[in-house]
Amino acid sequence: MNAVSPLPKVRIVLVETSHPGNLGAVARAMKVMGLSDLALVNPQCAIDDEARARASGAADVLEAARIFASLDAALADAVLVAACTSRRRDLPHPAFTPRQAAPEILGLARGGPVAVVFGSETFGLSNEQLMKCRWLINIPANPDYASLNLGAAVQVLAYELRATLEDAVLPLPRFELASHAAQEGLLVELEKALVEVGFHDPANPRRLMPRLRRFFAKAGLEKEEVAIWRGIIATMKNPNPGRRN
Amino acid sequence: MNAVSPLPKVRIVLVETSHPGNLGAVARAMKVMGLSDLALVNPQCAIDDEARARASGAADVLEAARIFASLDAALADAVLVAACTSRRRDLPHPAFTPRQAAPEILGLARGGPVAVVFGSETFGLSNEQLMKCRWLINIPANPDYASLNLGAAVQVLAYELRATLEDAVLPLPRFELASHAAQEGLLVELEKALVEVGFHDPANPRRLMPRLRRFFAKAGLEKEEVAIWRGIIATMKNPNPGRRN
Repeated sequence: MNAVSPLPKVRIVLVETSHPGNLGAVARAMKVMGLSDLALVNPQCAIDDEARARASGAADVLEAARIFASLDAALADAVLVAACTSRRRDLPHPAFTPRQAAPEILGLARGGPVAVVFGSETFGLSNEQLMKCRWLINIPANPDYASLNLGAAVQVLAYELRATLEDAVLPLPRFELASHAAQEGLLVELEKALVEVGFHDPANPRRLMPRLRRFFAKAGLEKEEVAIWRGIIATMKNPNPGRRN
Repeated sequence: MNAVSPLPKVRIVLVETSHPGNLGAVARAMKVMGLSDLALVNPQCAIDDEARARASGAADVLEAARIFASLDAALADAVLVAACTSRRRDLPHPAFTPRQAAPEILGLARGGPVAVVFGSETFGLSNEQLMKCRWLINIPANPDYASLNLGAAVQVLAYELRATLEDAVLPLPRFELASHAAQEGLLVELEKALVEVGFHDPANPRRLMPRLRRFFAKAGLEKEEVAIWRGIIATMKNPNPGRRN
């Protein structure tokens, strides 16, 4: 185990969880693997006695959980956002198994918070919520019964992070990634510009924005690159052909 | 996944389990990963409504569980017996992480049942019980709080077996990458356009093109995406703001 562990920088984000027992199970699953940053987005249940009982010795993680009114708020400072979901084929995201994703998550977490988002027990994550995530993480499962309990899914992900960390000497991240908020802002600007120059018609979107979003997700937008794209977008809207002469 | 999976040959053996909820959680953890052989040695609780509720769609695994009066009886036909425990240093057994043990377990399970034994929630496994096992499996955990719930421990072990099995088969790439020539051509076009709109000055290049080149390299340009970028470049050079109306 490295001297400064990246595990405390991995944030588990639970969206609209409805069963208190699952909140407790998640807290315990996190703590046994060394995670501690728990974010609850619009929880549909209270942190009650059942939650505390299931948390067992991890009640501290549960009590320290931060509650957010929106997913964006819970993700704002994250340098990588991944959704843990069983959905895959209908989405444009890069998709990884926990084992494939773990080294990258751990490497990036040395630079800033990495968020892994889990949907509600009944409804999972909506398309809108999924589109805020750069990656999908698909836990391998029995195709005839892939129904992982929420606590079990967090346990698998947290175990994989710890097992990978103990297995390996991790490379230091070479570049600083842009925050979720910066990337979202850039995509909004880009869409506006593409409408303005007549390339994109929101009335006939032809999946352009999901495809561009996926392209940016694959690239892993860095802080330095935000300025470049902002410049390109600004010039796209207000060309200045004389400048080059 | 292989045509004949070894996963159904991996037996989960629970010794003197005391909480019905844990029986259900174990059944569910097994079924989501494709395991089905559950053995209960001298259980201290019944398979009741709480167990069935926690098993959810894995009630079949729970109902098919075999009950044994002794550990020896549950292990009789096994070709390998491993104990999953947090104990380690005081025991003479070879000890492995789940990841180290998984390939051997899967290989041996093609020849006959492999048993993984889990102790009771309160007392774990006795020395006498541990001495019946050939191997120890230690799940990596937070040294300050290594208390995995029984269902969570079975989930981690079962996940590791399935993930190891699926890793052995290489997935086909899901997308077709653009050729080197297509990517180079696109970057030439992009540079020309950025000069034309006044964003890029070849006399004062500020490392713009190397940085954009790197961005595209990180993304891994796909064949389908070439057309999108060609369209954006063409519109950048010849904006058509009226189009959107």
